[in-house]
Amino acid sequence: MKTFFQYNWLIRERWYGWCEDVPPEELLRKRTGGVGGILETLFHIVDVEWSWIRVLQGQPDFQESFDRFNTLEKVRQLDKEFHAEVEAFVNAWDDRMETRLVPVEQRDGSIAAFAWGEIMRHVIAHEIHHIGQLSVWSRELGRQPVSANLIRNGLILPETN
Amino acid sequence: MKTFFQYNWLIRERWYGWCEDVPPEELLRKRTGGVGGILETLFHIVDVEWSWIRVLQGQPDFQESFDRFNTLEKVRQLDKEFHAEVEAFVNAWDDRMETRLVPVEQRDGSIAAFAWGEIMRHVIAHEIHHIGQLSVWSRELGRQPVSANLIRNGLILPETN
Repeated sequence: MKTFFQYNWLIRERWYGWCEDVPPEELLRKRTGGVGGILETLFHIVDVEWSWIRVLQGQPDFQESFDRFNTLEKVRQLDKEFHAEVEAFVNAWDDRMETRLVPVEQRDGSIAAFAWGEIMRHVIAHEIHHIGQLSVWSRELGRQPVSANLIRNGLILPETN
Repeated sequence: MKTFFQYNWLIRERWYGWCEDVPPEELLRKRTGGVGGILETLFHIVDVEWSWIRVLQGQPDFQESFDRFNTLEKVRQLDKEFHAEVEAFVNAWDDRMETRLVPVEQRDGSIAAFAWGEIMRHVIAHEIHHIGQLSVWSRELGRQPVSANLIRNGLILPETN
């Protein structure tokens, strides 16, 4: 579980670096698919990751709109603010939490029951999926996307004996 | 680990279903980003998943080109042929394999050492990333993509007591 979060944080940080070389209007431009833009996608990833971690902790989640975070600096700052809490939660993860029940109110007012392990994997897959969308938009801009490779980042070291 | 593979297989199967309603020329059309097309992406996902599982088992991997598998039926058939072996490997996964070393020859002839757990997560992230690309191309075609949600598929059931 932790490895995937570490992977996502690493790749996200590289996308922030990628954004530094792209004109702000391109980061904000409406695009086809996903949530409709590069910077808004990064904001959405940060928002969704933190919101689910808040839900698992029984805390109120994030209700802000992208309009208030529409620069690279603001998204990075927001990410930084949320990260300590997210990281602490991920680092404290243990396998006995996998099937713990979390009740989540649905749009129609009903309550759905999820397993904590299901939510955590949902958060992981959510980010990787949206990063895939960024990679297409990056090529549309004529730019090389950040590599999505999980290997070659030293995330798990092999035994050498 | 198994949950993510199950998720990927489920979503992939839904994308095959999605493909059934799309004209073959759109499935083959060259697109911006990724490996450059919808059906070739699905072929690539199947190829890469199986190839890495073969590498972990010390077996020769797949060296075919997409040209021989350029219909939905052929990709599905190939997937079916590979799936039994992939699924058996995934189902036999146990945590003691996480840091087991696998040597992999690089393009320059050198040997890199990876951990099995790193390779497995690489395969998982690889598919989710490419599916994210399909979702953009789907919207470009004016079609609703397959949902990427991991929750609401009953992949992990919460404890109810």
